[in-house]
Order: sequence, then C-alpha cells, then structure tokens
Amino acid sequence: MPISDDALDTIFRTARTHKHWESAPLSSAILMAIYDLMRWGPTSANCSPARIVFVVSRLAKERLKPHLLPDNVEKTMSAPATAIIGYALDFARYIPFLYPHDPDANSWFDDAAVAERTAVRNGSLQGGYFIIAVRALGLDCGPMSGFDNEGVDREFFRDGRVKSNFLCNIGYGDPKALHPRRPRLSFDQACRTI
Amino acid sequence: MPISDDALDTIFRTARTHKHWESAPLSSAILMAIYDLMRWGPTSANCSPARIVFVVSRLAKERLKPHLLPDNVEKTMSAPATAIIGYALDFARYIPFLYPHDPDANSWFDDAAVAERTAVRNGSLQGGYFIIAVRALGLDCGPMSGFDNEGVDREFFRDGRVKSNFLCNIGYGDPKALHPRRPRLSFDQACRTI
Repeated sequence: MPISDDALDTIFRTARTHKHWESAPLSSAILMAIYDLMRWGPTSANCSPARIVFVVSRLAKERLKPHLLPDNVEKTMSAPATAIIGYALDFARYIPFLYPHDPDANSWFDDAAVAERTAVRNGSLQGGYFIIAVRALGLDCGPMSGFDNEGVDREFFRDGRVKSNFLCNIGYGDPKALHPRRPRLSFDQACRTI
Repeated sequence: MPISDDALDTIFRTARTHKHWESAPLSSAILMAIYDLMRWGPTSANCSPARIVFVVSRLAKERLKPHLLPDNVEKTMSAPATAIIGYALDFARYIPFLYPHDPDANSWFDDAAVAERTAVRNGSLQGGYFIIAVRALGLDCGPMSGFDNEGVDREFFRDGRVKSNFLCNIGYGDPKALHPRRPRLSFDQACRTI
C-alpha cells in the first residue's frame, strides 16, 4: 500500500530546506527517534557505516562554529540541533554482529580503499534516510556541505576512525522565511527506460 | 505533523530488501512516479547529480547480466525492473537552471575532484531518496552493490559522463521468501549527543 498523499508531501513534495528556526530545544527522545527510524534503511551487507554527533549545547556549537563557511554560521548557531553525519572507516568491526550468517563478510572490507568507498556510499545513503526520517517525524532540516571537513574531523572525530560527510540542522523551521522553490530536472533529463 | 505510524512502517520499520518478485510488469507511470518523488530531496546547491537507467526489457536485462555477481543474477533477471543509479560527473552544466539565483555557482565545481566528490555524495543521498520513494509508493526494492561498475559503465554510460553507483531491483516482493531481519546498531553505538 502506498503511504498517503499528505505523507508524500511531508517527506518529499512540500518539504523544504530551512534556515530560520523556532528556538525551543529538541528533546533527547526526538533525536533518538530520528536514529531509530533511519537505522532500518538498507546498506550493503548491512554495514551501517553512518555515525552521528548531535551538536546541541552552546559549548559544542561554539566548537563547530569556526569550521563553518560564513553563510552557514547564523542558521547553524540558531538551530536547536546540528547533526554531524559522518561515516566510520572501521565499520567492518561490527559486521559479525550486523551480518551474522556470513562469518567471513568483514574480510570483504580488508582493503582500505574498498572500505572507504563502501563507507562513503552507504554513509551517504544513510544521510538520505536521516533527512527523510527528520521530515517524517514532522521536523524540518537544513543539510549543508559548506564547512571545513578536516577541521570538523580534528575537533569531533579525534581518533581518525570517522570522517565527516555533511552537516544537517534540525528543528521546526519558519515557513515564512522560505525563498521560492528551485526547479528540478525532468524525468527525461535524468532518467531513461530501456 | 509527523506522518502516520503505518507510513513510518512502510518507509522504514517494516520495509525489507526483497529478492523474490511477482512477475507482473511495472507501468512507465510508476517508474516516473518514483523519480517525481525522489527528485524533491535536497542536494548541495540543488546539484541533483543522480542519473537513472530503468532496465526493463529482456534485451536490456541481458546486457546487464554479465556484469552481475553470481548471487545477484537470479533476483535481478526476475525483477520487473532494475534501476541503475548513477551520478553525472558533468552535473554542473545544469546548475544555471537548478540554482539560478547565483550565476557563478557552476564554477564551484570546475575542479574535477570536487565535482566527483560532490556527485558521489549527492548522488548517493539521492539513492537513499530513491529507495524511500519506491517504498512510499507501496513497491518493494532490492538495492545491490555486487556488480562490475566499470563493465556497467561501458555498457550503459558509453560517453563516460555518468558513473554507476548501485543497482536497485524494483517490484512487488514475496514476503514469504524473506529471511529473519538483521539487527541494527543501537543509538549508543552509532550516535552521541554533545
């Protein structure tokens, strides 16, 4: 059964990237609920490489601030939470738990280049699940690539096993502050059927 | 407003990766409906690099077959449609249309390494949107990384401007053929709040 027309609007058709936020904080429960949805999305060999830091406190926001592009500072500092979506290079250590029916599956990722490619692809897929999960719960988000990845990694992922992918502000956005929506490519521009 | 509990089940909590398919073909309209949902998901500078080939005909399936890992042959050949989810390396040529308020934005991607990194990250995010869109429409999917990317690129993206990312079988799956669901990482294993 398809989900309802309203639900399709909420997760895709009328969802917008937000920059202006209601100031009320988000509960820990809602942050856990986002993860509890997104984690069910599929990944290669169930490898689940996404790692998330929810930056919520003023102190943690100040640690993030110097690594943001100027255009991204105000919207990030004013968001109730900013998720750093990263990917674990060492995700294979969980494979015996995540893919228990094949005891050798973690060896598929012994090659560091294969592991990194797998982590980037699947960590980004999970980033897509994250964005949809936020919206499905009635929240708004504002994903961003405009920041210094190496600086964020030094500050938040000091052991070098996780790399930052993108940032995503989360909260309840102000729809009155939105610009007109940008266009998208048509089916014929992006797809073909053979 | 959050979407309904049933809708959360459909797109995340009870959705499963399928391998056994009902044989009825899918209409062109449903393939267009999938794209018409997923295209609204956000990407960096609205760059929208995903490109999709819907492999539907017997002839096109036979062209795909030699590039599949053995484990992926039967489920792919029997699926009503298999999407090749690719990313365009030359996505920036559409930026003046997609991001019209900044006439210089396409120059952000002049560096081929930056363009490729942007295409991989955002094309994979769009892959996540694709999977959710398929499920939101009441269909099932079976995404796969197990194939020869270079072989698929030679066969389906001959001009070299698009690279394959992953494959995704689409149809109505047989729930009786599913194995027990694999576990996922807990919040504490994958996330922290600071």
